[in-house]
Amino acid sequence: MTYTNGKKVLSLSGCEAVYTSCVYLLRYLTGIDPENGCAIVDKTGTTLYTDMRYMEAAEKLLKGSDVTPVLYKQDELLKRLASYQSVGISFNETAHIEYLSLEKAGAKLQNVDAQLSKAMSVKDAWEIENIAKACNIAEDAFLALLPEIKEGMTETEVSALLEYNMRKGGAQGLSFPTIVAFGAHASVPHHETGNSKLKFGDEILIDFGCKVNGYCSDITRTFLFGDDKKHDEFKKAYDAVLTAHTLVKEKLKSGMTGIEGDAIARNYLTEKGYGKLFTHSLGHGIGLNVHEQPSVSPRGENVLLDGMVFSDEPGVYVAGEYGIRIEDTVALKNGNIESFMFKTDRNLIIL
Amino acid sequence: MTYTNGKKVLSLSGCEAVYTSCVYLLRYLTGIDPENGCAIVDKTGTTLYTDMRYMEAAEKLLKGSDVTPVLYKQDELLKRLASYQSVGISFNETAHIEYLSLEKAGAKLQNVDAQLSKAMSVKDAWEIENIAKACNIAEDAFLALLPEIKEGMTETEVSALLEYNMRKGGAQGLSFPTIVAFGAHASVPHHETGNSKLKFGDEILIDFGCKVNGYCSDITRTFLFGDDKKHDEFKKAYDAVLTAHTLVKEKLKSGMTGIEGDAIARNYLTEKGYGKLFTHSLGHGIGLNVHEQPSVSPRGENVLLDGMVFSDEPGVYVAGEYGIRIEDTVALKNGNIESFMFKTDRNLIIL
Repeated sequence: MTYTNGKKVLSLSGCEAVYTSCVYLLRYLTGIDPENGCAIVDKTGTTLYTDMRYMEAAEKLLKGSDVTPVLYKQDELLKRLASYQSVGISFNETAHIEYLSLEKAGAKLQNVDAQLSKAMSVKDAWEIENIAKACNIAEDAFLALLPEIKEGMTETEVSALLEYNMRKGGAQGLSFPTIVAFGAHASVPHHETGNSKLKFGDEILIDFGCKVNGYCSDITRTFLFGDDKKHDEFKKAYDAVLTAHTLVKEKLKSGMTGIEGDAIARNYLTEKGYGKLFTHSLGHGIGLNVHEQPSVSPRGENVLLDGMVFSDEPGVYVAGEYGIRIEDTVALKNGNIESFMFKTDRNLIIL
Repeated sequence: MTYTNGKKVLSLSGCEAVYTSCVYLLRYLTGIDPENGCAIVDKTGTTLYTDMRYMEAAEKLLKGSDVTPVLYKQDELLKRLASYQSVGISFNETAHIEYLSLEKAGAKLQNVDAQLSKAMSVKDAWEIENIAKACNIAEDAFLALLPEIKEGMTETEVSALLEYNMRKGGAQGLSFPTIVAFGAHASVPHHETGNSKLKFGDEILIDFGCKVNGYCSDITRTFLFGDDKKHDEFKKAYDAVLTAHTLVKEKLKSGMTGIEGDAIARNYLTEKGYGKLFTHSLGHGIGLNVHEQPSVSPRGENVLLDGMVFSDEPGVYVAGEYGIRIEDTVALKNGNIESFMFKTDRNLIIL
């Protein structure tokens, strides 16, 4: 496989070379991310510097690509960096101490954060493939979880089981700490999973995701653990959130801005009286980071393009009562939204 | 509870204030680590800046401590930082972009990485308590795992099960990606857990750990899945590694350097003919990071003190054949080594 990401970033950067030692940028530029590694991209290709421990594995994984693994020697690396007219680095992902050592060695450094974000926001086919796998594992894990949910289980136990299913399904790790919220806890969008016990009639909100080759999935489902017939308001709101979620999939098109995308859900929820209860953005980019470009929000001026991957996650939160969020990881393809989630139901599940 | 870490760092730093936005340093200085938080320590105490979402939780958690939670406002924070004669920050854990914004605001910044590492290497009682809990959960998880290990399971499955046990036991997350190595894979100290299947007679090496309130445990056990009577060399080496591990517990005393501590194991293994096969350090500090100060290695010039927590992990690796590592998380108390691990056997287990 040829990783064209390096070329893409180099060309956007306008620099003679691009350098990074940041784990996820390393993965982006070379396809792998050995511990203590770093990489230089220039017009001759991409060089991955790594140590003895990872050399054999790197050579095997990079065979046939345009990335060359080389043994790391600090003085050689610094000398090479100093030889360029300009070296693009991420000011966001470079520790100040490393900046100082590169500068001291004579490297002429420029900030290429904007160019990196832009390049990373549009995914190549192999990146999409990894995200699709991560979504697939997450959905399977959720489906295997549902029949295991029993009264009296804690939020932590449910989350442990879901994470186990994902790891067993081949996930490399989590995209972020799993959120499991029972009952009114769901009204806190960033609830910290705890030791509350599940009761009949509780709503359950689960926000989770896993990684495959560094790439993330992100999904939220809200459902009921039995129906105690006290959920009329909840069900009304659920319908509204689901319609907003679905409208986005139908109406969001390549070429719109993030603001326009967000407005599809926001306008509908406002119309239904839930506008003020939709307290966050509709979506965020998903890739090697679970939050990256583009922003699909009231402040998201970026244009949404084919190949971008982001979340479609409208939500409604009533403090101390309930919270609803329905989230898929989706991509723009040939102008339209395609969801990576096709196994789990979005209609209200009542266990 | 009073977190004296802030005072300790401030006094070591020689600065008028210390500032951080780094997650684990925030935890160190305030006891909690809300998303997007930051903190200032000065002679009046510690201020934790956080946003609306975490304010209520922060107030509750910090009640009675000398840490005051305050709503984050960028201009106020920057003005305050500019008002000090000197502000200590970690150059290692500050992104260059943040450094630039602090500098632009007029903050007079100094690098206090060395002082932070030094302060963090000696643990308070509440830190030891968290590490002890994390060790306890890890040991329980391992004991619950053993009877579940069956022929044909993959490394990933074993690791998923172990991680599930830790999460269910109350772990907040992992200290690092679990290493499960079957057979000759164990000869690679940093083996990447994969899809190899367990066979009768395989050795199993598992290196794992979890977090409690940010604090890590780290433990390795090596054992046999049935005895195919082909493990004479392995068993001889196992005895040597175990003796080295135990000698360290007996002979390492407060006041020794890391070099002297490492030599206890290294000299013994060398004597037994395994010196060249012990390819890494004896130990590393463990706390909010799974690798921190002190270094217990041939280059570890630091003096080992009461309150320090580190690993005792001698190992012997024969490429393509076998690998043995026996690791406890231990602490120095009243001059002597105390292990946090007291449930799992160090004698060779044969399943």
